[in-house]
Order: sequence, then structure tokens, then C-alpha cells
Amino acid sequence: MANFGDLQNEIYLAGLSGVLPTLPMSFAELERRAELAMPPGTWSYVAGGAGDEHTQRGNRAAFDHWALQPRMLRASTERDLSVELFGTRRPTPIFLSPIGVLGICGQDGHGDLAAARAAATTGVPMVASTLSQDPLEEVAAQFGDTPGYFQLYCPTDPEVAASLVGRAEAAGYGAIVVTLDTWVTGWRPRDLATANFPQLRGRCLANYFSDPVFRSRLAKPPEEDPNTAILTWAMMFGRPLTWDDLGWLRSLSTLPIVLKGICHPDDARRAADAGVDGIYVSNHGGRQANGGLAAIDCLAEVAAAVPGVPLLFDSGVRSGTDVVKALALGATAVGIGRPYVYGAALGGTDGIVHVLRTILAEADLLMAVDGYPAVADLGPDSIRRC
Amino acid sequence: MANFGDLQNEIYLAGLSGVLPTLPMSFAELERRAELAMPPGTWSYVAGGAGDEHTQRGNRAAFDHWALQPRMLRASTERDLSVELFGTRRPTPIFLSPIGVLGICGQDGHGDLAAARAAATTGVPMVASTLSQDPLEEVAAQFGDTPGYFQLYCPTDPEVAASLVGRAEAAGYGAIVVTLDTWVTGWRPRDLATANFPQLRGRCLANYFSDPVFRSRLAKPPEEDPNTAILTWAMMFGRPLTWDDLGWLRSLSTLPIVLKGICHPDDARRAADAGVDGIYVSNHGGRQANGGLAAIDCLAEVAAAVPGVPLLFDSGVRSGTDVVKALALGATAVGIGRPYVYGAALGGTDGIVHVLRTILAEADLLMAVDGYPAVADLGPDSIRRC
Amino acid sequence: MANFGDLQNEIYLAGLSGVLPTLPMSFAELERRAELAMPPGTWSYVAGGAGDEHTQRGNRAAFDHWALQPRMLRASTERDLSVELFGTRRPTPIFLSPIGVLGICGQDGHGDLAAARAAATTGVPMVASTLSQDPLEEVAAQFGDTPGYFQLYCPTDPEVAASLVGRAEAAGYGAIVVTLDTWVTGWRPRDLATANFPQLRGRCLANYFSDPVFRSRLAKPPEEDPNTAILTWAMMFGRPLTWDDLGWLRSLSTLPIVLKGICHPDDARRAADAGVDGIYVSNHGGRQANGGLAAIDCLAEVAAAVPGVPLLFDSGVRSGTDVVKALALGATAVGIGRPYVYGAALGGTDGIVHVLRTILAEADLLMAVDGYPAVADLGPDSIRRC
Amino acid sequence: MANFGDLQNEIYLAGLSGVLPTLPMSFAELERRAELAMPPGTWSYVAGGAGDEHTQRGNRAAFDHWALQPRMLRASTERDLSVELFGTRRPTPIFLSPIGVLGICGQDGHGDLAAARAAATTGVPMVASTLSQDPLEEVAAQFGDTPGYFQLYCPTDPEVAASLVGRAEAAGYGAIVVTLDTWVTGWRPRDLATANFPQLRGRCLANYFSDPVFRSRLAKPPEEDPNTAILTWAMMFGRPLTWDDLGWLRSLSTLPIVLKGICHPDDARRAADAGVDGIYVSNHGGRQANGGLAAIDCLAEVAAAVPGVPLLFDSGVRSGTDVVKALALGATAVGIGRPYVYGAALGGTDGIVHVLRTILAEADLLMAVDGYPAVADLGPDSIRRC
Repeated sequence: MANFGDLQNEIYLAGLSGVLPTLPMSFAELERRAELAMPPGTWSYVAGGAGDEHTQRGNRAAFDHWALQPRMLRASTERDLSVELFGTRRPTPIFLSPIGVLGICGQDGHGDLAAARAAATTGVPMVASTLSQDPLEEVAAQFGDTPGYFQLYCPTDPEVAASLVGRAEAAGYGAIVVTLDTWVTGWRPRDLATANFPQLRGRCLANYFSDPVFRSRLAKPPEEDPNTAILTWAMMFGRPLTWDDLGWLRSLSTLPIVLKGICHPDDARRAADAGVDGIYVSNHGGRQANGGLAAIDCLAEVAAAVPGVPLLFDSGVRSGTDVVKALALGATAVGIGRPYVYGAALGGTDGIVHVLRTILAEADLLMAVDGYPAVADLGPDSIRRC
Repeated sequence: MANFGDLQNEIYLAGLSGVLPTLPMSFAELERRAELAMPPGTWSYVAGGAGDEHTQRGNRAAFDHWALQPRMLRASTERDLSVELFGTRRPTPIFLSPIGVLGICGQDGHGDLAAARAAATTGVPMVASTLSQDPLEEVAAQFGDTPGYFQLYCPTDPEVAASLVGRAEAAGYGAIVVTLDTWVTGWRPRDLATANFPQLRGRCLANYFSDPVFRSRLAKPPEEDPNTAILTWAMMFGRPLTWDDLGWLRSLSTLPIVLKGICHPDDARRAADAGVDGIYVSNHGGRQANGGLAAIDCLAEVAAAVPGVPLLFDSGVRSGTDVVKALALGATAVGIGRPYVYGAALGGTDGIVHVLRTILAEADLLMAVDGYPAVADLGPDSIRRC
Repeated sequence: MANFGDLQNEIYLAGLSGVLPTLPMSFAELERRAELAMPPGTWSYVAGGAGDEHTQRGNRAAFDHWALQPRMLRASTERDLSVELFGTRRPTPIFLSPIGVLGICGQDGHGDLAAARAAATTGVPMVASTLSQDPLEEVAAQFGDTPGYFQLYCPTDPEVAASLVGRAEAAGYGAIVVTLDTWVTGWRPRDLATANFPQLRGRCLANYFSDPVFRSRLAKPPEEDPNTAILTWAMMFGRPLTWDDLGWLRSLSTLPIVLKGICHPDDARRAADAGVDGIYVSNHGGRQANGGLAAIDCLAEVAAAVPGVPLLFDSGVRSGTDVVKALALGATAVGIGRPYVYGAALGGTDGIVHVLRTILAEADLLMAVDGYPAVADLGPDSIRRC
Repeated sequence: MANFGDLQNEIYLAGLSGVLPTLPMSFAELERRAELAMPPGTWSYVAGGAGDEHTQRGNRAAFDHWALQPRMLRASTERDLSVELFGTRRPTPIFLSPIGVLGICGQDGHGDLAAARAAATTGVPMVASTLSQDPLEEVAAQFGDTPGYFQLYCPTDPEVAASLVGRAEAAGYGAIVVTLDTWVTGWRPRDLATANFPQLRGRCLANYFSDPVFRSRLAKPPEEDPNTAILTWAMMFGRPLTWDDLGWLRSLSTLPIVLKGICHPDDARRAADAGVDGIYVSNHGGRQANGGLAAIDCLAEVAAAVPGVPLLFDSGVRSGTDVVKALALGATAVGIGRPYVYGAALGGTDGIVHVLRTILAEADLLMAVDGYPAVADLGPDSIRRC
């Protein structure tokens, strides 16, 4: 059985033949090169966040306040990074976070497909965004054997919402991830300064434009009158869901329902009591609400509040070290966001695969060195606040 | 009903037609551009503070130690940002802090009038400074339907003080805001290095020069002998008020009295016991006393000490996120200072309106995303020290 | 009665006539300009410290962890900055810290005399260093009505020590300040890199070379054989005093004895029990022992340990704000070190006077604004850890 | 008896004759110059660490959270820096940490020999790395009267392991230091980016290539077929030891066994219970596992957990101040790593000796000034968290 960390041997051995990695080996370099590779507006949209971006920076900084505990002389020769997710065993504890603007980040304008192919290659599941450049069915067609999950921005038109969820179930998605914190867009100074909001320019609306119910709301199809279609989209984009809507959401499919954006333990408890299938701790990478706690700090509190509930997590994860910390703090699986977008910008599917492999390799080697042979060995005893 | 946050839609939609914002969308850019736009001496006067400016910087940094608590699945589609202030309902929870040098910051040398017009446009009340480039009556004449409040630097000549307060009441001001911490000017190295104190050059003394009692103290009117008038002003500028003076202050008008500059809970309790109508927590933006606690930290303590007392707050507020935090920590209304001065420097009335609208939009969207539909929903449960 | 803070009026009024300050108004600028004005080796010697200078930087940073409490509506129109020191009333709560290399920092090579003249002008007492460029008698001759104190580096030759103390008493010094932490020189990389130690080049040894007992130890007088004199000095420079030596020290004169360099409360208690007349909390500005607590933090602990004992303090004081904090934390009087050396480098006696006046003005205005009319009003209630 | 701190007198006196130090006097300058002096790949290998190097930086930063307590008036004229280590008295409390790549860092490609000669010169013991450019016997031949210890990367082939240990015992090494945290290499982005791993290029494998058992595993000797030899080495490099292996390790020789890489108090207790002769607290300078606690913080906890057990320590030590802090926190002896490698790069044996002498001088003078005449006087009372 191979370990993810074997990637380093591969790289060093290739180096003996003069073959050097062409893609970045650190997030710092990845970010630097992605900024150069992406169109400025797209870069700002992806790299930016809400307000003065303090929460976005805080998401990163907070990881440094958590210290893993190295343990010696434990048998960690082979590592098991697999996790149980929605009733299936996944070979890795990470997933691709939903990224609305992903379509225009890939090199060919089809970033969603590139990510789906990377999911197929690596076994890392993709949470496909509602705001996709390609219809969810075409995205799913690239998944191979890897499961995918569908992220829902719930439209105000309940029949469009039902249609999207129904299509996701039909296309084989394994769960519905309902984003709670984005029925309205956060205040993002970088985008406002250039008045740049890609969706309003028709980007990443394929799921709507391909949706029969959505199309039925239009006098003319989007192909003929895109502006009206975009405006219709904008008007119905975000339904501010309440606790009362959970029953209705459940009624839309037989799929597991995951609530994304929960950061407060009381909300987590209430969601668990309401029987959701998973809680996704996230502050949207600092893109929606500035001024809040770092997401990794919320994770620790939520995990303590709802033991046993599957917990997805993202916001601020940049490396394998971050992944291991989030797992130790209670995440069932850990979402990778901006790093893989940057990978897409630098190398399409290969770039995403590269980023995922380096993150997994770092996590794997860290668990090896620190004496944690399996994800199940990570827990409160393996991490501490410092 | 429109929300303040709709501004972002307006901007993004304008962007589709190629119309980009000409004024800054972030405080960082606002500050940068204002420095370039303002005369160096004026810039230093406004941007500088007391001593090594540690308290001024600390005012900003301390906001980062307070984290708002995002709550999901709550009905916050429409927000109510209105607050009750001195018996009237105001549509927004912010106000324009008194700025002594404001007159020379506006593009036409009449910054006070520009701010008053912005108050009229936005419904954001202005606390008009005693140190105004235009007489308080002319400032008030620009307020439209928006109430205004009069900030008093209490002169040592009690009859001049009485005259100023009486004029403010006659001109329709709705409260007297008595500044406690500036009967003497703080030690400000930037201004000392250039020996620049605008008032001594006759700036912003219109309220005195137009005052009949003040004029009666002069042998010749200020128009004929400005130097003596300035010197007379300087000699009578600041009366160091004590607790014993509160009764006298009260006797000067029927208006509510607000004490500005209180940072210690014991002082707040004593003021409340003395029956003041409001307490204004502020360290003067770090311009008067260096070496003290950040103002936002004082707010939390004062709010706990005098529950139920109207609390105005300023010092360090730069964004809508800051506004929401201050409200959650107990402010009844939150004062905007330097940001609107910079707005005035960049765009006069329009610049101030722009700054206020962006701050309100950010606050509004933050409350939307974080699940707080109204100011009344913000409180100790919605914020925590971190 | 004039307040020290009136200096700001003086500066602003002079500015109206076009007269700008020629000397720096902030420590940051003072330091910048002094570096340019001083010979590199002298600059490094003064500005540098022990090890990687973490303690030196920490001395500064720690002031920011203490917050003064502004109190309003208190009668602080006139301030009383006087303190009782060794039985006499001093008009200010500051003093000139002993500076060994001072002689070569003044513009004419007689920095000790420049400082003594500044003491005469300002009423700020000077603690004259044993390592003086001019004999202690000549330094004392410049003091005017201001008392002076003599800092003793205790030689290993007890008769030389006795001679120095006897001369100090005869010359009218009011106390002996015995430095405990410098019988050996700390590890100072900046000086080591250039192998620069001014005393070994014959600088600042006038007290020895003029001393009859010291001279009696030499075969030839220093004027004829300076190298042997220097070597003799180096051999007898520092006696590592112990608790057992206090009685002997006391026997050398009738003057009050102050122990300089005490940072630990247990040492302070033992010193108080031994009957010393004062304790001088200082870590030598970070020049001797790296890796220790910031001096201002030690002050708070020592003050609590030995209530009632006169406490001198220095290390890290750069401004009037620092002075007020140190007073609030228990210092009887606060020593100014590097700032006045930089003043000497930029302007000789006038430069020192300028620096002292700005520090006093800032302290005075801060006490005015913060509502503390007298040094006696400062105490544990006026400051807090933050 | 001479003190280590006399080095400063030596430097200052030499300066009088115009002789300036040619090697750096501070770590900051040492690092700067070493970067310029070393080949880029070697520099990155030595200076870099695991992941984003947060733990590596944290190792340094954590020293600043510990403050030594200066005590005055104690007899510290002569210092005793000697410590008891493995039954012998060593004149200094420091040692040379094992450095795998040391061979190629020295100026002549024989850094291990240079370090061994520096050990002979200074009396500072060297922990010689398994990954040596010269066979352990040749290294030991340079030790003079200074003892040496052998660091073991335990091969998966037990007979090779036994052979290495046996050779070390035969060559006169005084202890076996078994590295626990490096049976697999950590994720090091700097090296991965250039695919540079010196050992895979045949560097520092002399102990294997000279080993009869290792050679018996090869069809052709390394001199004839180096690639196969390297590959064979890589395949057997690291055995992931477990607690069950301690008995076997013990059986390999009569030498004391030290476990290197223990950071958790529970592991320390278990090791002590298992009867190891010493515990080496280290996180490998941040080169193996990112995301953990700073090593100096681990030291404090381990020391409390296993009183009486000899404790070696390294990771982050750059100066004499660091050495004294580690001793106060419980280290029996303190390892110097990167500083001496940089010394080797700048000056070979002389460079290493210089670095060691400056570190010892700083430690010695700090103990003198702070009133701790001997290592035994350092302990919990002499340091505190701040």
C-alpha cells in the first residue's frame, strides 16, 4: 500500500534525472504565481474578501494558535487517511470546496470540469457549486468513481430550487450542501472598486440557464436574451432560509442534507436536533461576513457541541498541516478552496491534482512523523491551544 | 423598503454599463487618496494624534479583538438600522462626530456646510463642532430634516458659553454635547514640529467671531483686529469643567446634555447619577491623551456600568464592521470621524455622502449575513472577546 | 504658576511668527537625527544593547501593555509635578540617568558638563556617572541650584572606591547611586563587531585619572603613561558587590545610598530590610543582561514589594507618557537616558534642555487631560494592565 | 581560572591594536553572511524546514516568552558552566547537535571533521550524525580529549544498525543518540522545489559505504556502483522504531542510550520508565513536523515530567541567552545546530570554534550579570513565562 507522502520520493528521484517540479511546492509560491497568471479582476474576486479582510487573514493566522502534539515510537509506517463520509469510505480526508467563480479560473474557461476531472484522478470529492460554468450534469459526468456533492444556493423560487436539487440527485450527486450565509453578497471592496461581479456578466450561470423550470420563467431563452436571463437570475438568486425551511429542503430529495456556514455552537446544536446529515463549519473564506471569529476556532467549539455529527470544514486551509489540525479539532473532512483555484489557474486539471497531491503528501508525512497512523487517531489529545 | 446594502447592487449594475466608482471603496484607499489630496499641514492635523500615537493605533487594533457571532437561518431579509436618539427615531445608527478643523478640510473651505448637507442627504445627524468655519446657525440651516447636535468646547467665560448654547438651542440643535477632555490641547508632535495649529491662524473660529457676547469682550471687532480676537479666543478657549459645573451647564438650555470623553465606568456611573441625558465614550480619536485603553474596550465597560443610559461612541471607527461591533458592545449610536473628513477632502458633500453610504451598506450587509435583522438584536450575545 | 505644558503654546505662538522648532518633537525623529549626527561607533555604543537586544526592545514594547485611566471632570487646571526625593522637594519627577559614555556624545566632547548645565537650567537632577569625561567636581560645579547624585561603579580597590565617594560628598552630591549590574560588561555584539569600547581608548576616565588614590596606584601619572593608567583602570573597574558589602558602602559617607539595577521583588525586599535609602529599578536599558523581563514590568512588582521605599526607575522611557505610566506604577522619580544623550548630540546643553522640556510638557498635558493634577494622584487606580 | 566571557576583553583589547573580528558577532549577521557564502541548494537545505516553517520560526519566537530573573549582589565573579553528562564532567553546558548535511557545509567538503576538530579545541562534545561525509571512526579520531556521541538513524536492516552502533562503541563514542522523528523525511517545500536531497546524490553516506554489513548487502561495492549503493541506502534508511524496540536497541552496545525527538511529557515519562539514559527534547529544528509547539515550551513540560533524567535539548538555540534559558528550564545540556553550520561555512573549524566561543561568552556574561555563578543555580526560580 502506497502512502500519499511517497510523492516526495517521486520528486526527489525525478530530480536526480534533472526533472524539477514545474508547479509550486508551497502555498506562498502558488499564490504568487497564480496572481500573475490570472486576469486581475478574477484574481481580486478569488483572493479578496469581505470588508477589510480581517476575518480572511484571521482564518489563516488562527491555525498558528493550535499546536499538534508529536508522539514518538508509535507504529505509523503506513497511514490510513481514509474517512467515512455520508455512508461511504473515502480514501482521503479532504474535499474540493464549492467555488462559484471556478468556471472562469481554469485555463480553458471550464474550471468546473477541470476540478471534476481532478476529483476523478485523486479520489477527492468535489462539492460542485450552483454557480457553475457548466451544467451540473456535465460536471458530474467527469467524476469517474469519485462521489460528488452539490452545493445549493437556494433560489427564492422554490420550484427552481426543487428542480436544481432534483437534477443533482438524478445526476448522481451524493449530498446536498446548502449554503446558508450567501443569500445576499457580502461587502467586498476589491470587487466594488472595479464594479466587478462575474455572475452579472453572465458567468457561471449554466445551472440556471440549463434548468427547465428557470427557463420557463423567461419570455425568451437565455441564448436569445441573456440580459433578461441574468436579471431574472439576480432577482431570484438568494432565499434567506430559516429554520422553518429545513423540512421543505428535506422534502426535495432523498439525499443527505448538509448545512454550510454554521459557526456558532448553538446553531450547530439546533441543526443536529433538526436531524441534518452534516454540518459544514465555514465562514466562506472570509468572503461574506467580516469581523467574526476565525473558522478553525469555530470548528473546535462546534465539534464539542455536536459530537457524532459529520462535520465538514473549510476557510483558511492552505496546507497539509492545516488539514491535520482541522481533523484533530473534529472535522470529518476538510475543504480545500483557494489553493485548488490557484492550481487550476496555473495548470488546469493537472494543477488541481498537483495541489491536492502536495496537500495530501504533507498531511500524510506529518501524521507519519507525529505518530498518528490514522485519521481516527487524531483528536483532542493530539492538539492544543498555544 | 430598501436596505442600505442595496448600494452594492447599484454599484455592480452601474459597472455593467462601464460606470466605475470614482471614490474609494475601502478605508485604506480613502486614507491614501486623502493624504494626497489634502494640504500637508491639514493632513497632519487630521491624521495625527497625541504623543507617539499608540492610543490612536490602539483604537483601531482593538476592534480586531472583538468577534461578531454569525447566526444562521434567522430572518434578516429586511434590516432595521434605526435607533432611538434623544427621543426621536433616526434611520441609521451612526452620526458625524464633531471635527474642529473640518472647515478647512472641505474642498471649498466650508467643510462644516458640506457635512451638514451630507447629513441632510443621508439622515445621519451631525454633531457640529464649536470650532466651525461657519457659524452654527448657517450650519444648521443645511440640516434639512435631519437633526443636529451642538458640540461645546466650554469657554472659560461663562457668558460666552451661555451665548453659544443659547444660539444652538435657538438654531434648532437637538442636544448639547459637552467635550470634557479638551480644555487644553493634547501634546501632538506632528503639529508641534511644524508649529501648526489652525485655530491660532484664525481658522474655524466663526462661532466665536459671530457671537455677540464674545464680540463684546473685544475692543475692536475681529474683522478689524483679527489677531487680538484670536488671542482672546485662545485665552478663553477651554474651561476645565468639574462635576460641580453640571448644574450650571444644565441651566443654560432645555436641551439634552451629553458628556463627551468619558472612558471610565466610575465616571459613567457618576454622570448617570447626575442625570445626564447621554454619555459619549470617546478618547478623541487618540488626539488628546496618549497611553490609554482603546476606546472600544472602554465602551464595553461603560455599557455594563450604566445600562439604559444612551451611549454615543467614537474613536477608531472606520467601517460598517466597526459600527456593528460598537452597537453590539452597547453603543446607542456610533460616530464617524476621520473617514468622513477624508471623504470631504476628496469630494466635498458628495464625498461625505459616499463614505457614509459605504459604511452603512457594509453594516447592513454584515447584519444581514450574520443574522441580525435589527440593531436591537445586537448585544452581548452577538459579540465576544477573542 | 506656569505648567510645563505651556511649552506647546510657546511653540505654536512662535510658529505664528514663522519660527519653527529646530529640534525634534518626537522621539522617533530624535533618534533618527541623532543617528545621523553621531559618529557611527558612538551611535552604536549608545543605541545598542546586550545580546540580540530583545530586552532593550522589550523595555519599550512593555509600556504599551499598560493603559492609563482617563478621568474626567476633575480639577487639573494646575498641575503639581513635584516629588520628594532624598528629603528635598524637586519640581519635576524626572532625572537624568547616569550615562557612561556621555562625555563623547556632547558636541564639544564634554557631554557631562552639558548635562549638568541642563540640570541647572531645568531643575532636573543629574545622576552623574563614574565614567565621566570631566571630574565629578567640575560636573557638580555646573549644577546651579539643582541637586546632583553620584553614580558609583564600585572599583575593586576599596580605597579608590572610598576616595570617589568621599569626593562626591565633598563636592555636594546628594546621594550615592551604586550600580549593581555592571561589575563586568554585558555582551554587546554591535560594539564587539567593531571592537569598540570607548573607555579602553581613555574616554570618560577623568574621575579615576583625577583621583589621588587611583594615581597613587600608578608608577607614572596618566598624563605621562596613559596606557598603563587605562589598564590599571580596567583591572580595578568592577567589584562584584554582595549583600555583605552594604555595610562597608554605608560607611563611606553620610549620603543616602541607592541600589541601582534591582529588578526582582525579593532583592528589593532584602535591600529595604538592609535599610537602603532608595531602590533604582533598571535593567540598564537592556545593555547588560539580555533575556529578562521589561523593566517597567519589574517596577510594578518591586513597588508592590517595598511600599514606602523611594523608587528610582529607568529603562525604556522615551516620552512624557512613559513617565506618567512609571509614576502610576510606583516610581518616585523616572530616569531619562538615551533621549537626552540624543539631545546632547543634536544640540549640546540646549538639546538636552529641549528634550527634557518636551518630555515634561507631554507628561504635564497628559496629566491635565487625564484628570490627575498631581503626581500623588497617580497610583494603582490610574493604570491597568491591558 | 578563566571565564568564557573573557573573550570580550580579548576582542576589545585586540581592537586597540586595530585587529577587528573577521567573523560575525551576532547570529543575525552570521546568518546573513552564511547565506552568501553557501551554495544556494545547501543553504536552502540547512536554513529551510518543514511545511510553511511556522514551527521553525516559532522555535525562535518562543524564547522571547521566557524571561530570566536578574538577581543582584550575589557572588558570581567566577562562573562554573560545567555540567555532568553521562557520568563525566563537561566544562561547558553545550554540545554540537547532529547535522546530517554537515559534510558539504564545511569549506573543504569535510564539515564533520571540521566540527570534530572544533570539539577538540573547545571541549564542546559533538553528536556525530549517521549521515556523515566521513566515517565515524575518522570523525572520532579528531575529537582529542573531548568525548563524542553517535547519533543513529536506525536502518531497517537490524544488522546494519548493530554494525553502526558497534563501530561507534569501538571508536570510543560515549553514547548513542537515537533519532526518533526521522525514519521518513518531513515535507520540505524549499528542497522539493529544487528536487534537492543531498543524500540521494551520494552525499554524507560514508558511514554506510564504509560499513562491512552494509557493503555485504551490495552486489558491487559503492565505489563501483554508487547508484545502487545509494538506492540500497534509501531503501533501508529509516526504521520506524516503537517502544518494543528499546530492548533491542539496548542490546546493541553497553553505551548509554538517548532518545532524540521527544516533545510530549507522556512520551518522556514512558521513556524514563523504560530506563533510557537520557531524553533529547527537540523538534529537529522545525525540519520534520510543522505545526507543533515550540521546542523550548516542550522542554519546560518534559523537565517537569521526568525530574532527574538527563535532558538534552535543541531547536531554536541561537545565542548564549538561549542557552541560559534552556538550562533554567531544565536542560542538562543544550545543542547548537544551525549557528555552527554557518560558522563552518564561513570559516571551517575556526568558524565553528568562533561561534561556540561567542555563545559561551554570552552565556557566561549573562550568568555573571544576572547573579547565577553556576549552572546548578539556574532553575525554575530563575526564569518565568512572560
